[in-house]
Amino acid sequence: MSDRVTRKGKSQPQKEEPKQAKKQKVQKESYDVVQLQDIAHQLRIHSIEMTIASNSGHPTSCASMAEVMAVLFFTKAGMHFNPKDPGNFGNDRFVLSKGHAAPILYAAWSMVGYIDKAELLNLRKIDSLLEGHPVPKLPFVDVATGSLGQGLSVAGGMAYSSKFLDKINNRYWVLMGDGEIAEGSVWEAAHLASHYKLDNLTAIVDVNRLGQSEETSIGHDVNVYKKRWEAFGWKTFVVDGHNLNSLTDAFEQCRNVKNQPQVIIAKTFKGKYLEMENKEDWHGKPVSQAQVDFVKKQMKQQDGFTLTPEVPAQIDRPQQSHFTVEVNYAADGKQSTREAYGKALVGLSKSDANQQIVAVDGDTKNSTFSIKYKEAVPTNFVECFIAEQNMVGWAQGFSCRGKVAFASTFAAFFARGFDQIRMGGISGSQVKYVGSHAGVSIGEDGPSQMGLEDIAMFRTIPNCVVLYPSDGVSAERAIELVANHKSPCYVRMSRPSLPILYPNNEVFEIGKSKILKQNDDDKILLIGGGVTTHEIFKAAKQLSEQDKVHVAVLDLFSVKPIDHDGILNAANKTALKTILVVEDHYSEGGLFEAVSSALSLDNQIKVHSIHVDKVAKSGTPAQMLSLYHLDAAGIIAKVKSIIQ
Amino acid sequence: MSDRVTRKGKSQPQKEEPKQAKKQKVQKESYDVVQLQDIAHQLRIHSIEMTIASNSGHPTSCASMAEVMAVLFFTKAGMHFNPKDPGNFGNDRFVLSKGHAAPILYAAWSMVGYIDKAELLNLRKIDSLLEGHPVPKLPFVDVATGSLGQGLSVAGGMAYSSKFLDKINNRYWVLMGDGEIAEGSVWEAAHLASHYKLDNLTAIVDVNRLGQSEETSIGHDVNVYKKRWEAFGWKTFVVDGHNLNSLTDAFEQCRNVKNQPQVIIAKTFKGKYLEMENKEDWHGKPVSQAQVDFVKKQMKQQDGFTLTPEVPAQIDRPQQSHFTVEVNYAADGKQSTREAYGKALVGLSKSDANQQIVAVDGDTKNSTFSIKYKEAVPTNFVECFIAEQNMVGWAQGFSCRGKVAFASTFAAFFARGFDQIRMGGISGSQVKYVGSHAGVSIGEDGPSQMGLEDIAMFRTIPNCVVLYPSDGVSAERAIELVANHKSPCYVRMSRPSLPILYPNNEVFEIGKSKILKQNDDDKILLIGGGVTTHEIFKAAKQLSEQDKVHVAVLDLFSVKPIDHDGILNAANKTALKTILVVEDHYSEGGLFEAVSSALSLDNQIKVHSIHVDKVAKSGTPAQMLSLYHLDAAGIIAKVKSIIQ
Repeated sequence: MSDRVTRKGKSQPQKEEPKQAKKQKVQKESYDVVQLQDIAHQLRIHSIEMTIASNSGHPTSCASMAEVMAVLFFTKAGMHFNPKDPGNFGNDRFVLSKGHAAPILYAAWSMVGYIDKAELLNLRKIDSLLEGHPVPKLPFVDVATGSLGQGLSVAGGMAYSSKFLDKINNRYWVLMGDGEIAEGSVWEAAHLASHYKLDNLTAIVDVNRLGQSEETSIGHDVNVYKKRWEAFGWKTFVVDGHNLNSLTDAFEQCRNVKNQPQVIIAKTFKGKYLEMENKEDWHGKPVSQAQVDFVKKQMKQQDGFTLTPEVPAQIDRPQQSHFTVEVNYAADGKQSTREAYGKALVGLSKSDANQQIVAVDGDTKNSTFSIKYKEAVPTNFVECFIAEQNMVGWAQGFSCRGKVAFASTFAAFFARGFDQIRMGGISGSQVKYVGSHAGVSIGEDGPSQMGLEDIAMFRTIPNCVVLYPSDGVSAERAIELVANHKSPCYVRMSRPSLPILYPNNEVFEIGKSKILKQNDDDKILLIGGGVTTHEIFKAAKQLSEQDKVHVAVLDLFSVKPIDHDGILNAANKTALKTILVVEDHYSEGGLFEAVSSALSLDNQIKVHSIHVDKVAKSGTPAQMLSLYHLDAAGIIAKVKSIIQ
Repeated sequence: MSDRVTRKGKSQPQKEEPKQAKKQKVQKESYDVVQLQDIAHQLRIHSIEMTIASNSGHPTSCASMAEVMAVLFFTKAGMHFNPKDPGNFGNDRFVLSKGHAAPILYAAWSMVGYIDKAELLNLRKIDSLLEGHPVPKLPFVDVATGSLGQGLSVAGGMAYSSKFLDKINNRYWVLMGDGEIAEGSVWEAAHLASHYKLDNLTAIVDVNRLGQSEETSIGHDVNVYKKRWEAFGWKTFVVDGHNLNSLTDAFEQCRNVKNQPQVIIAKTFKGKYLEMENKEDWHGKPVSQAQVDFVKKQMKQQDGFTLTPEVPAQIDRPQQSHFTVEVNYAADGKQSTREAYGKALVGLSKSDANQQIVAVDGDTKNSTFSIKYKEAVPTNFVECFIAEQNMVGWAQGFSCRGKVAFASTFAAFFARGFDQIRMGGISGSQVKYVGSHAGVSIGEDGPSQMGLEDIAMFRTIPNCVVLYPSDGVSAERAIELVANHKSPCYVRMSRPSLPILYPNNEVFEIGKSKILKQNDDDKILLIGGGVTTHEIFKAAKQLSEQDKVHVAVLDLFSVKPIDHDGILNAANKTALKTILVVEDHYSEGGLFEAVSSALSLDNQIKVHSIHVDKVAKSGTPAQMLSLYHLDAAGIIAKVKSIIQ
């Protein structure tokens, strides 16, 4: 795909010497309201023309926020950024949470000179980066948006990073639609931002009244929004979102608020200054060319705009280190893989000279053992409380700021953030997710706490690495591997204490499995992961000792990418060319399907499965493994039925 | 599993004649505060003893809510219910959103005579229904809880059902922990409940200050909670949660509030009346037997309690009808399957004499076409706005009240509710989920709007039926099938208009696929679903006409359960014993893995795949299908490479 976004950078006069961003009173005389209004209208016109060219898109959703965008991009009260260098680490950042308004975002970046004007008409075309909803292939976009209500979380993580970790004086601006304020993730984000006093974060709510299919539940009652945001600890400004002076005043005041995030509740009209202003049934529909003329007639000046943004100092993006961990277990020791996670983070921190590793958790840190990292590197641990969607969003925000972000909770509760994880996949976000308490082996707490679909979920994320360690050594090595890997990653951890299987210096690789037992006279190959690796190992020993039946044992370790060749070679060495996969997970999307689909063309191999085949319940871990035939006894019975 | 929960029903005197529930002023003299306090202490003692017996569980989380439970279960201000018949449709319902406090729930049902006292000590044991977190195997539990922040949504759907559909005068009481209030789903639920003025819904927040791993982010600042709930439209009562008179007053007042849900913000102490009262590090830990004596010493009376709940009139649960739809398409017509969904709901409504079908949507009704049902049966359509977690919860609430609940949004956005869908699976909730805009074939909107992991997600839900229709006829039949099926179901719908493939009277079955083309000289079998069924059909015709290569064509239709025999037989008839699965979905957990894992033991068959193999982008639907080789041209090329 060709990069058709080209820098223009000549038609707009740019400040040659970037100036240090500082909080200063903006002089009303420093901008020209007439010109600013015309810029807003020009943004409308671009949005109309772009969506006519693509024959799809949301021009009326752009029209309601044109004045906000004009103030954001063209006044000192708004964003401070270098339009020639959207990647400058010192720039203010803008997150368009209502991603369907992408055209006006692209139009603004064109009007500041970064995107060629002709390129705008390639909106939504297959060889353009100007997609229907923004994606971070564009350097001025941090995260993909378009699934509503997620932008504020990511911006929260970024703002925390600038304020407390990087200590950079930039600001974060998030534009949200009013409809998306109904998403609970917005309130998770609002709560945590005020809890951590993120005064470098400003939200703008474009209260244009109309949702996709009807009026929003709150309509134009801006006072309801004001009360809610205030109750969540934010400084609020209610303004006429089409009045440039009111907007500029509010932006300016936001820059001066201390220890509190701010929200500008902008009362606007969908399709403002178009003939369909404030009318229903115009969501997501291009309008006619006549609307361009309709807007043009309202303009005083149609080009030659001279307003420009304030340019901050250049700051280079930090380079990421290489991280290593020292692993140290007694060969006859025991360790839960979840606790090995905490140990590994602490271990990695010793090679983290620039403190780039950041860990977040959702009030489970004494269960996931991320608490060990909090104790060792308290500045770089962020408690996100019981709000997993926002926790995932914050982790993505940290990742956007060059941090190596680890997010941990029970494996089951990552389901709460699946849409955020999905969008992170589209963004190519490099968060390392670590899920503890996988499977029925947690025991008494019962099914609500058991991750039995987590592997299926994370396997669907493009380029996501999925590792499943089975002892303390492989768990720490898995954390070391993902810390250095440039993609989203998931590591599945178990609750029970498990015997050490590997020497401390064992080398693990993404995409490689481990053979734990193999002989010339193996009948079949057993494959496990986590707790079931231990059960298949026990079963194999018993079968060998008591029944003189020999089976090979493979610890899968890397679920995605899967070790096709290693598995196939091991299976081919067995007499029956047969595999039995044993997993503490549902069948669908788990180890069995990963293995059987990988071998779908190697049709000499049969693949059997033992898995959790119904809704689980409470009981001891041993009873649970037994109930689903995941223990050595169940495995032995299955092996015998296969080899008969 | 034996049902070890036995009715006791003799040691507690019961009102023999249930009385009509009506809102009346409770006389303070009608209950005995001293006895009520002793009941609260006895609930504490049971909770301590149960968790000692199970050697796990959350006694301190129970202790903070003992007075609330005493008022709920033993006063006229609290729940009106028949303790001998927890299934009475006219009972008030209690949802324990903080499911980890399950012991005190079971203790209360024991003290009203429903659960045998001895059974309490089987908490968390494998052959007891008293699981670590409540599940609806127990008739007094509507939904599984334990993933926090979900109870209020389900109660909202139930309360709406009673108030507006069934017009039953019962009430819903939801007890939440303070930590879970950080979950955004709570605020989605709070918003919709006040929007629909659910005055039959009371939330109680047990503000015991302490989370699992540290103090909650709000601590004991009950005023923050008050402001937030008020801003979300609720009538608030802030009380000392250990003061029985204050609690009873608040409950009584809640019963008299009109057109507004109510919340009782109860300031409490974790471990109240135990030695570890208000101390950290006691979450989820049993305490010693000495604590039983410690509580006993604070009691005036230790048995012979005479307080009982108010018993409402008996109301029978409605029986579900059998639903049918008339399908009527011209053989040469076209129809998008998403629009067929709306048509089918309207069609089904003609056989729905008791108006049991309820449809919910998240402001996408003009895209999913659930708007057709709103237009036809406005009373039974509920707009849930842009808040998918709560929408899923409300659908489950409707299902709990005997409704046939359909929930629709874009397939991609069901990821937002995955944890709720997961918990619904544990509950055995019978919601019918309908996802539109599946796959890259939506085109220009880009990847944020494309459901590419929805099949993988729904396949993980135990007993969930997954259907994937490919034309208007099969889409309407799929909706008819799931309306009558007693399990969670997912139907995947596509955006593009597609030719009609089947006659109107074609019979479809759950678990059965359809062969569209088969001859004696087929080389391989092509399997598709939705849009790819049309592309494989086109490819097969072209291959036959232009290349004299014959291939069989199978429309998968039922993804789960999968038609193992039908697929195997069709594949076995091909010369190459080979299948090519073509799907508008990621490989992981989708059609290919469903097929290849189903055939993992039929190792004469090879299974190839074409699927979406990287992050998608914007472009026309045709370009998107072409980019991922999902169109006829891509399929033909793949077939040729296979048969060479």
